[in-house]
Amino acid sequence: MEKVTIKQLAKELNLSASTISRALQDSHQISPETKQKVLELATVRNFVPNYHASGLRKKTSKTIAVVIPEVADSYFAQAINGIEAVAQEHGLHVLIYLTHESFLKEQAILKEFQNGRVDGVLLSITAETAHNQHIRELLGRGMPLVLFDRVCNDIAAPKITTNDYESSYWATRHLIDGGCKQIALLSASSSLVMSANRLEGYKKALEEQESSFQGATVITCAQSEADTYFLIKNLLSDPQRPDGIIATVEKQATTVYQVCQELHLNIPQEVKVLAFSNLQSASFLNPSLTTITQPAFDMGKAAATSLCKALKRKNQPISHDTQVLPSVLHVRKSTC
Amino acid sequence: MEKVTIKQLAKELNLSASTISRALQDSHQISPETKQKVLELATVRNFVPNYHASGLRKKTSKTIAVVIPEVADSYFAQAINGIEAVAQEHGLHVLIYLTHESFLKEQAILKEFQNGRVDGVLLSITAETAHNQHIRELLGRGMPLVLFDRVCNDIAAPKITTNDYESSYWATRHLIDGGCKQIALLSASSSLVMSANRLEGYKKALEEQESSFQGATVITCAQSEADTYFLIKNLLSDPQRPDGIIATVEKQATTVYQVCQELHLNIPQEVKVLAFSNLQSASFLNPSLTTITQPAFDMGKAAATSLCKALKRKNQPISHDTQVLPSVLHVRKSTC
Repeated sequence: MEKVTIKQLAKELNLSASTISRALQDSHQISPETKQKVLELATVRNFVPNYHASGLRKKTSKTIAVVIPEVADSYFAQAINGIEAVAQEHGLHVLIYLTHESFLKEQAILKEFQNGRVDGVLLSITAETAHNQHIRELLGRGMPLVLFDRVCNDIAAPKITTNDYESSYWATRHLIDGGCKQIALLSASSSLVMSANRLEGYKKALEEQESSFQGATVITCAQSEADTYFLIKNLLSDPQRPDGIIATVEKQATTVYQVCQELHLNIPQEVKVLAFSNLQSASFLNPSLTTITQPAFDMGKAAATSLCKALKRKNQPISHDTQVLPSVLHVRKSTC
Repeated sequence: MEKVTIKQLAKELNLSASTISRALQDSHQISPETKQKVLELATVRNFVPNYHASGLRKKTSKTIAVVIPEVADSYFAQAINGIEAVAQEHGLHVLIYLTHESFLKEQAILKEFQNGRVDGVLLSITAETAHNQHIRELLGRGMPLVLFDRVCNDIAAPKITTNDYESSYWATRHLIDGGCKQIALLSASSSLVMSANRLEGYKKALEEQESSFQGATVITCAQSEADTYFLIKNLLSDPQRPDGIIATVEKQATTVYQVCQELHLNIPQEVKVLAFSNLQSASFLNPSLTTITQPAFDMGKAAATSLCKALKRKNQPISHDTQVLPSVLHVRKSTC
């Protein structure tokens, strides 16, 4: 069916366009009889208000942006499902932007949000993001913002995280209890708060051990997949290679399995492997993978719920509390 | 920095708002001197044209919608990456809508697109979508549309698919050559063209076999994960259970592995398993999983490229050809 415009409705009813427009907005300036006449014809003619016209009038786009490093990762895919569930409930549309871990891309994307395209932003920063002037500018323009998973501590916005420090501590303890003497941590970034917390938990667990224990081995693989492969291959080819590995990013785990296969290293006999991962096939890997599983869906839901609250109370102070949702250690064969 | 409006620029330059607006649109009605003055001040004051105002003026939103069954699936996650790569190149924003395999949701989502929010749509239909009146209506309103992966043959729009018939034929042949006498096909839908093609390829390979071969066993698991689990458990608990399984959807493969583990059925000795899957961990499953891998990223790119072409030639006839990108059979231990 052809779309009908306000002008066409006006002509057909012999009224002015502004009368039609006001009648559709239920203005008190228009009589009940006229309103009814206009509404009836609008229904019959299948009138749909133009998105941009209502956007201009109401100063809202009913759209939120989700800015994340990538989508081909079980954590973010599940988080999107959580976000989308809340957005649909509130009649909000979801724009997805992928930074592919590029700080420059993140800056450029956030700059796009100053023109009314979105009402609010959910952000999980890149592994490269060491400065946050671009995020401050967005907030300075009054844009409601919620950070999730990869947050910046010094930004005054609600934050949804998981217990990275504790999870990493327990992961390391689990490997120590299993007899590991030299545990390596594969980090995602030298700047992310999330990575720093996972590093601190790991160090704390190591420090609690007696002196016979080897020092910390931390490898940062924020770069390309090829670089990550190279770093892990180097690590495991060394005669002094670790007997335990904690991968703090899902993709690193697959690379560790690949390298172990290539070097004929037996998991868990020669190297125990544990990963922060939401991979649904973790139980069916060879061997099944011990994971720290984040509450991805619930974190997405919590972030979107917090943003919806901020949208409703625009221009009012909102709580900048951090909500911490606990992760779970699933022990499987890769560490036993 | 505070956002500046056209009115504020007008006041500061002692010009009318409409002069400012026309100067910013490079109208021939405004003198070069005035234009320069306006542009300089607009730059200094960090003026950003309102998204909805330019949307109304230009009748474009620079936004495309991607409507897919779900995001927590390697195929769709990789396809989104392909779509996003092309969109970013063309300065387009990407709205993601998840139908979660619900026909009603798909109908409701497509109805939202009639008000100018998006310039074009990329669609992969649900397993439930047996009718396509809602897609015809969208096209009838002049909305550029490209179907990908899960397409409808009788819709006059460009389509991007993979060689489902051939892939399924070769998958079945591979199991027959491996000695399977009773091969079951786990289908995704009784209405999808994609599923019908995979079924036909499977049947064709079976028909080519001598009479000693068992008949076809086709199980449709379009329902919930719990239903899928129940159907597969039933199938494999039967004393007359199949000795080969083709999962036509990624998630079914994980469920088959789970059920085999529970029933202590050895893969591949007792049941050979092959799946249509883009799972990056396929090589590291226990046993490694033989897959038909779809060119997900390239299909996403091709679909977005085709849509961009349609957007550029709006109101001109566009080709409704189907582009078929071939899938690849990766033989691994689950069938050897």
